[in-house]
Amino acid sequence: MTACIFCQICAGTLPASVVYEDKQVMAFMDIHPLGRGHVIVIPRHHARQLPELPPGLADYLFVVARHILKAQRALGWGLEGSHILLNDGPQANQTVAHVHVHIIPREKRDSLPSLGRLLMHVTGLYGPVVKRQRLDQQAQALAAQLARLPLLTAPELPAA
Amino acid sequence: MTACIFCQICAGTLPASVVYEDKQVMAFMDIHPLGRGHVIVIPRHHARQLPELPPGLADYLFVVARHILKAQRALGWGLEGSHILLNDGPQANQTVAHVHVHIIPREKRDSLPSLGRLLMHVTGLYGPVVKRQRLDQQAQALAAQLARLPLLTAPELPAA
Repeated sequence: MTACIFCQICAGTLPASVVYEDKQVMAFMDIHPLGRGHVIVIPRHHARQLPELPPGLADYLFVVARHILKAQRALGWGLEGSHILLNDGPQANQTVAHVHVHIIPREKRDSLPSLGRLLMHVTGLYGPVVKRQRLDQQAQALAAQLARLPLLTAPELPAA
Repeated sequence: MTACIFCQICAGTLPASVVYEDKQVMAFMDIHPLGRGHVIVIPRHHARQLPELPPGLADYLFVVARHILKAQRALGWGLEGSHILLNDGPQANQTVAHVHVHIIPREKRDSLPSLGRLLMHVTGLYGPVVKRQRLDQQAQALAAQLARLPLLTAPELPAA
């Protein structure tokens, strides 16, 4: 039994609104979203920080993040802007010690409150909790868009 | 003559403290650093946002960013944490309309002022200007570390 909440999500012992998964990564909705449709991508392999991952897997996280961003925009999320953000280490406000990349859509009309929430986020605080049903709907919409993009191919990695 | 300051840096008509360059990308010191050794990676090809780039080039930016992060840490920068950050679009506080990825080392002892500067940055403001000589020294130190890492291979891209 691991104490890492992201490993528990990978193991299916904690719930998540899954957007995408393959043998190397999982992508799911952030339960403290800083913008509509905020997604997190993680490696299944537990590592605290990016340099601890096999290079092919580290780079693949950003490939998946780019696909997520495209899927978000196909849904009209982040058309005015998005952040792709890795907080890598405690002084960079990494709040879960398992590598994760944020894809955060921003919106004009939520500029002020969203900005406030983003500022909270980089200080290590959170956005508001969103209901699971809403997160599941967003995850399903994103998954449908991802299915229309070029297929992702998870890298083959050396055995651990 | 382009109005884009990053295109002018690529063309050599504006100065920059260059950390790394190849046929596809350039990496140089941010002149408004939000942490010691803050680097920006850009594609030579002008595009405002990530989805406008050829996919292989978009992904390569993050491969280079990961190498920069390793080089920074080899110098002792960002050992407690770093941000890899793409602000993609005006509502995400992208202040230069040419795709760029930030690699921002954070430090414990500069936690408060640095945090203040990071907050300014995500609001679209800047950190303090640093003297060119200091930036050049940092760029040279990073370049020396990069030379010790596995060779980067710029992708072959379809002709424009």
